Amino acid sequence: MLLRTKFLELEAEKPIVILNKDDADDLGVKPLERVEISFKRKKIIAIVNVAERIVREGEIGLYEEIQEELDIKPDERVSVAAAAPPVSLAFIKKKLNGQTLDDKEIYSIIEDTVNHKLSDIEITAFVTSLYNHGTTMNETASLSRAITETGRTLDLRTKEIYDKHSIGGCPGDKTSIVFVPIVAAAGLTIPKTSSRAITSPAGTADRFECLAPVELTLEEVRRVVNKTNGCLVWGGSVDLAPADDIFIKIEYPLSIDPFLLPSVMSKKKAVNAKYVVIDIPTGRESKVSTNEEFELLAGKFIDIGKKLNMKINCVSTLGEQPIGHAVGPVLEAREALQTLMNHRKGAKDLIDKATTLAGVLLEFSGVKNGKKAALHIVNTGKAYKKLREIIEAQGGNPDVKPSDLVPGPKTAEFKSACSGRVLWISNKDVDIIARDAGAPKDKEAGMVIMKKLGDKVKRGDVLFKLYARKTGKFNRALKLAEELDIMRVGKERKMELEKLPAKKEEEKYFILER
Amino acid sequence: MLLRTKFLELEAEKPIVILNKDDADDLGVKPLERVEISFKRKKIIAIVNVAERIVREGEIGLYEEIQEELDIKPDERVSVAAAAPPVSLAFIKKKLNGQTLDDKEIYSIIEDTVNHKLSDIEITAFVTSLYNHGTTMNETASLSRAITETGRTLDLRTKEIYDKHSIGGCPGDKTSIVFVPIVAAAGLTIPKTSSRAITSPAGTADRFECLAPVELTLEEVRRVVNKTNGCLVWGGSVDLAPADDIFIKIEYPLSIDPFLLPSVMSKKKAVNAKYVVIDIPTGRESKVSTNEEFELLAGKFIDIGKKLNMKINCVSTLGEQPIGHAVGPVLEAREALQTLMNHRKGAKDLIDKATTLAGVLLEFSGVKNGKKAALHIVNTGKAYKKLREIIEAQGGNPDVKPSDLVPGPKTAEFKSACSGRVLWISNKDVDIIARDAGAPKDKEAGMVIMKKLGDKVKRGDVLFKLYARKTGKFNRALKLAEELDIMRVGKERKMELEKLPAKKEEEKYFILER
Repeated sequence: MLLRTKFLELEAEKPIVILNKDDADDLGVKPLERVEISFKRKKIIAIVNVAERIVREGEIGLYEEIQEELDIKPDERVSVAAAAPPVSLAFIKKKLNGQTLDDKEIYSIIEDTVNHKLSDIEITAFVTSLYNHGTTMNETASLSRAITETGRTLDLRTKEIYDKHSIGGCPGDKTSIVFVPIVAAAGLTIPKTSSRAITSPAGTADRFECLAPVELTLEEVRRVVNKTNGCLVWGGSVDLAPADDIFIKIEYPLSIDPFLLPSVMSKKKAVNAKYVVIDIPTGRESKVSTNEEFELLAGKFIDIGKKLNMKINCVSTLGEQPIGHAVGPVLEAREALQTLMNHRKGAKDLIDKATTLAGVLLEFSGVKNGKKAALHIVNTGKAYKKLREIIEAQGGNPDVKPSDLVPGPKTAEFKSACSGRVLWISNKDVDIIARDAGAPKDKEAGMVIMKKLGDKVKRGDVLFKLYARKTGKFNRALKLAEELDIMRVGKERKMELEKLPAKKEEEKYFILER
Repeated sequence: MLLRTKFLELEAEKPIVILNKDDADDLGVKPLERVEISFKRKKIIAIVNVAERIVREGEIGLYEEIQEELDIKPDERVSVAAAAPPVSLAFIKKKLNGQTLDDKEIYSIIEDTVNHKLSDIEITAFVTSLYNHGTTMNETASLSRAITETGRTLDLRTKEIYDKHSIGGCPGDKTSIVFVPIVAAAGLTIPKTSSRAITSPAGTADRFECLAPVELTLEEVRRVVNKTNGCLVWGGSVDLAPADDIFIKIEYPLSIDPFLLPSVMSKKKAVNAKYVVIDIPTGRESKVSTNEEFELLAGKFIDIGKKLNMKINCVSTLGEQPIGHAVGPVLEAREALQTLMNHRKGAKDLIDKATTLAGVLLEFSGVKNGKKAALHIVNTGKAYKKLREIIEAQGGNPDVKPSDLVPGPKTAEFKSACSGRVLWISNKDVDIIARDAGAPKDKEAGMVIMKKLGDKVKRGDVLFKLYARKTGKFNRALKLAEELDIMRVGKERKMELEKLPAKKEEEKYFILER
């Protein structure tokens, strides 16, 4: 069928065309089926949307991507024919029916996902099927390899690559900014890629971006790592696992993550990591609540590591409260910098966590007491020096001072209405409030937790401080901070944790001061 | 956040807006999350898409539906804020996690589906979860009720409503066109709604449309049924189960149908049916292959019927070959008309099937030997007279003659290369070829099967005849008919049914003559 092109001022990641309903019926294609469009010597398979008004009979509506790919003008004639779905759809259906997929079938699905040949409905069916039926270890390994192979990879001179991953969940977890310089200063190669925040107020890429550019090309990453042994860059800019980004978009609205293992492992594989430490924050306020859950997840990481020729060590870390005190990109970058500048004044739990994780990698490299060696690197200022080297190599200001890192001008202090000890801190509420204040989009927004679990508190002591850049966001965060139960101060932990439905007249714990 | 409206020349069923990435980040919303748009006194919740170019910072791109609903012009300012997802999303996640849903939760999901408040990804997650985890009988009943209650319903004077449903799968199944007049002529009320073809060359609505209009309003349906006791209309036009249409769009590309039972039952409930016969074609070429499968499915229909206060009777019918001879809308309408005009010359299996199913309903009404009574209605010409009454009441020509129903002018006969008996006919291949010839879009396209299972065939006898309207489609169907193994003629059934991989040099069974 010959159709006249109509340009739609629309962008889509996938090749999508819009047909008039009559033409679609004539071609025998339904919405979300495919057509092949031929123009001169070019052929494109596109997913069909159907309209009744905006595209008339005899027309074909083209999104910008297809306009460019066909190198065509409006009102030209293209030949359009029904096209078969990609073979990978049959493999998705196989998984949907609870069958196990082999290496080639998984590769086919991942390849077609990355090449935008599958519709959102088809990808969603794949994601929910993996979630519902689970994945075998072989499938997980295949997924990891396929996600790696359909993206770019980092090829460094050395073959002894070290890496770390945290499954996340703790607000203020700026560990990588302290950890990477320690490992790099020890002479180990650690090309660390990090993510931006998805549901949290800051990802490591958002944090480190306050100190140096993090959107580097693969060539720049290679240069930085060859020079300093380490880096702290945003994984998205080096396009190591494009399939993962597509799956995240589907997983996020459904709050499911069947790709946790392949997602992590594919990124480690893409930098050719040989030794990996996995940080699994554990506890009441974390993704992993119990030691049993930790052991289950750690066992999976270790098994999948074996299949991918990686040595994996998992560490269960205290996940019941924020790491250090600062939450929000600028505040966290400042705290990490201050901690390495002067470890005696720095956040103790941050140093403890960073050196514990670095110690694991040092022991992989043959060092006897890894943690002690890591602490030594911090205490002698070597890690601090290395941090500045990395900042400079990535194009940041190597002389950056903590006072250059200025949080938002709108602030409010929240004071305790009673004396006692901090009994608990809600990680979730900290995240919500810091995001409401504007983080991570407003890098200057966030909060500083002045008192941590077990700290003594007197009535009137500041519990936490809120920072924001914009008035509207500040007011919204302020209101929320007053409503939510972020921290609780008391004489002792009571047996009663919570009551449902909550009493409305419950005593407020905060006095506000602006 | 205040944003300036930009009009997109785009239609969508859902309320969708496009935000610039920076504004979306600022609002803290990700693609497929929601915003609330306020303009004057109107408020709309819309699903967010994100663009980097076509919508600039400070702009909001509006689809046509939202333009109309807000009654707004381009370049006006609207207030935009992040909005929570509908509560039904939590219930979808519950089902995704394998939990059972209650009546209210299911109603909430179906209501939000019909009101376009859920994204395709969310609806897909629901559909695949129902498929993966299955549904309890209570869930099936809740789904049926919710699908009925979120659509329109037909309220007739009588409370004794009769109905039929076929799960489909047989090409040429024009049974309803013979069956409805029989039941209506017996004095029973049967407001039959039918579907258009989805994957087949003709649905009953497509067939009957060759005799009379089938897109009637609910008021017109009421009038027709009150006058004639029956009707044959397209279910889509009376909007009885709009949720079902939305789910079908998701199910179709995935070839799954977890809504089979609620889909059927909701439509029967919507016409207030009390007695229903379900036709389940069974056999090698059917959706249901074995008697065991039939009993399993029939048991479910009967159980769900009890929950919905309906008396259900399921009939396993021969599903191994097309019903009658004609396949394709015009050809089938002609065959049905001819069969009722002159039952002695009509298709025997068609009369057998229609009277068997009608007999079940007649027995529900108290008649002793239902099948015999149904045959009597055919033989005395009462069914034929009733058919013409219904055609007239729906606005068709009551004097329509078989010769008015003219199939496509492009024809080809396929002759047998050997003598013997017809050993098998491939339903699937018949469907594919008739569709390739243009059916159901080209109503005149299709095929006539001259020889049925067990019929004696001499070398050179015509096995089937192909009809098409358009040359391109005719040639394509012709080519396919030559390639596929539609019918096999032989002396006796051999033990070998099929060999994989097939021998390429396999003997062709057809001689072509145009």
